[in-house]
Amino acid sequence: MRTEIATLGEFGLIHRLTKNIELQNNSSIYGVGDDAAVLSYPDKEVLVSTDLLMEGVHFDLTYVPLKHLGYKAAIVNFSDIYAMNGIPKQITVSIALSTRFSIEDLDNFYEGLHLACKNYQVDIVGGDTSSSLTGLAISITCIGEVEKDKVVYRHGARDTDLICVTGDLGAAYMGLQLLEREKTVFQGEKEVHPDFTGKEYLLERQLKPEARKDIILKLGEINILPTSMMDISDGLSSELIHICSRSNTGCRIYEELIPIDYQTAVMAEEFNMNLTTCALSGGEDYELLFTIPIVDHEKISEMEGIKVIGHITKKELGSFLISRDGQEFELKAQGWNPLQAKKD
Amino acid sequence: MRTEIATLGEFGLIHRLTKNIELQNNSSIYGVGDDAAVLSYPDKEVLVSTDLLMEGVHFDLTYVPLKHLGYKAAIVNFSDIYAMNGIPKQITVSIALSTRFSIEDLDNFYEGLHLACKNYQVDIVGGDTSSSLTGLAISITCIGEVEKDKVVYRHGARDTDLICVTGDLGAAYMGLQLLEREKTVFQGEKEVHPDFTGKEYLLERQLKPEARKDIILKLGEINILPTSMMDISDGLSSELIHICSRSNTGCRIYEELIPIDYQTAVMAEEFNMNLTTCALSGGEDYELLFTIPIVDHEKISEMEGIKVIGHITKKELGSFLISRDGQEFELKAQGWNPLQAKKD
Repeated sequence: MRTEIATLGEFGLIHRLTKNIELQNNSSIYGVGDDAAVLSYPDKEVLVSTDLLMEGVHFDLTYVPLKHLGYKAAIVNFSDIYAMNGIPKQITVSIALSTRFSIEDLDNFYEGLHLACKNYQVDIVGGDTSSSLTGLAISITCIGEVEKDKVVYRHGARDTDLICVTGDLGAAYMGLQLLEREKTVFQGEKEVHPDFTGKEYLLERQLKPEARKDIILKLGEINILPTSMMDISDGLSSELIHICSRSNTGCRIYEELIPIDYQTAVMAEEFNMNLTTCALSGGEDYELLFTIPIVDHEKISEMEGIKVIGHITKKELGSFLISRDGQEFELKAQGWNPLQAKKD
Repeated sequence: MRTEIATLGEFGLIHRLTKNIELQNNSSIYGVGDDAAVLSYPDKEVLVSTDLLMEGVHFDLTYVPLKHLGYKAAIVNFSDIYAMNGIPKQITVSIALSTRFSIEDLDNFYEGLHLACKNYQVDIVGGDTSSSLTGLAISITCIGEVEKDKVVYRHGARDTDLICVTGDLGAAYMGLQLLEREKTVFQGEKEVHPDFTGKEYLLERQLKPEARKDIILKLGEINILPTSMMDISDGLSSELIHICSRSNTGCRIYEELIPIDYQTAVMAEEFNMNLTTCALSGGEDYELLFTIPIVDHEKISEMEGIKVIGHITKKELGSFLISRDGQEFELKAQGWNPLQAKKD
């Protein structure tokens, strides 16, 4: 089933995409349908983060279903708000798409968006839909709230702080490798379904990531306020260097402490890749990296899903990974480079 | 002079684009450099509007200098906030660009952005820069403020309200026609400069539009709160139909009252186009269209730069233009269609 978008007309399309929206947050006063959305944040500080995703650069529709893309595009933005110790409350969604896309495609994309918004209690309050000469462009802005004295920046890490990581790392990157390998199969014959048995977790981490709302809520409950925090989108190594450079510190992390899932390890072996490098530089984990004062050690060690992987040092001691056999390797930002050369 | 963007690296580029930013608004607590910007709006309501501009659809770099594009991209978003009776305070700017663009191009674009932000006292608080496979994509989100009981929506027009328009209409559209005509000249020979003498106003309206901050401030001063308001981006006719449909009303506007500049009239004559059609459906004027209670007639007639062009009626009377010779023409939304068919 394929219906051309042009058959709906502008108003028909807007109606179709927005008719099911019911605002659920008190801070959402007025949503789609006017020149701007109206929000109210009398008692909190307002967080704003934004993202522009381009087809062929940030996503590959050969193996990413549009519903998953919609879900992930929203999650990635929620993650930025959690990384400030905030709670996302609203998003605006603008997309530009070529005639290659049908109404059904748009429906799928919005289905993913709506699902993410439902799961995280976020309102869609605005945006627009227009055309593009080639491919799909998606711009999402996320607005969230945080209590005035609870904003966590990247620059607050201090000497002796513990470095913590949530979940496990490298799985989304291995999922991407897996999908890239199967891409030719997808493209060549429609009836061939590659066998992903035993690799479901890797695919899920790549195609349907989650943001760590649970961690932010738990940290609040047990009264831990991180000294610095970021979400891990470009790889642990790159983000840690960010925090150290902004905080004017160094760090020591320990290879044996980096949390890695079993499936990630199996795939790295299969691909003949260095597992630690995948975990350090893989990217798209959307886990949280944060530092806490050493006095909070006991509290944090009781929390599930958080691993202490090292500690902050004085700046002059540099930023190093200590390998299993005790060698020191300087951390480098080998994360994904959004400015890599692309042909026009 | 052309320097490849890749030579700067990601951090070098971010530094170059953000080093001159000084936050000037009290509501801007923290700007670029973290996962999200931090804002504070304890006493006002927060307005959020967003825009995604695609090369080849929303702008043509053949005749639009990048500095002007930066200026206009910001202004268009400010205009949406004024159209809610608010004041823009922050923007986030995301752009994706192919290797066709150099650092100098980016500098020019940002120069225009910064100028617009300076002129309207708006802070750049976030965004990102990444690559695209083809062309340039620009996404701007604007955040503004408005007093709680002063938000003006599209849906508040009532029978007998006066319909007001600021400035003059159709000039930006005529400027576009002019540029389109000269496009071949631009493309063919670099040394040929078309003669735009006497047409400067049309070009300025197309290439360097302004948003009507002055009108919003003045209306506040003389204590007029419009019942409904929009900015005119898709053409007067289309916007008026919006207001009537959302307000459940009809309208009568008078051809002879529509404000049109002399240069616009001369160009329409030269192009053999219907002048009123240009003013009704031209688009990109970024003037304000609003309605006021009839009791405010005297106050508004004393304000410069505002013209009363008709009045709101009951819905069943329809939406009509009364021509100079007294004929009635039903208003139609012939504005620019962002979903027009484009080839992939």
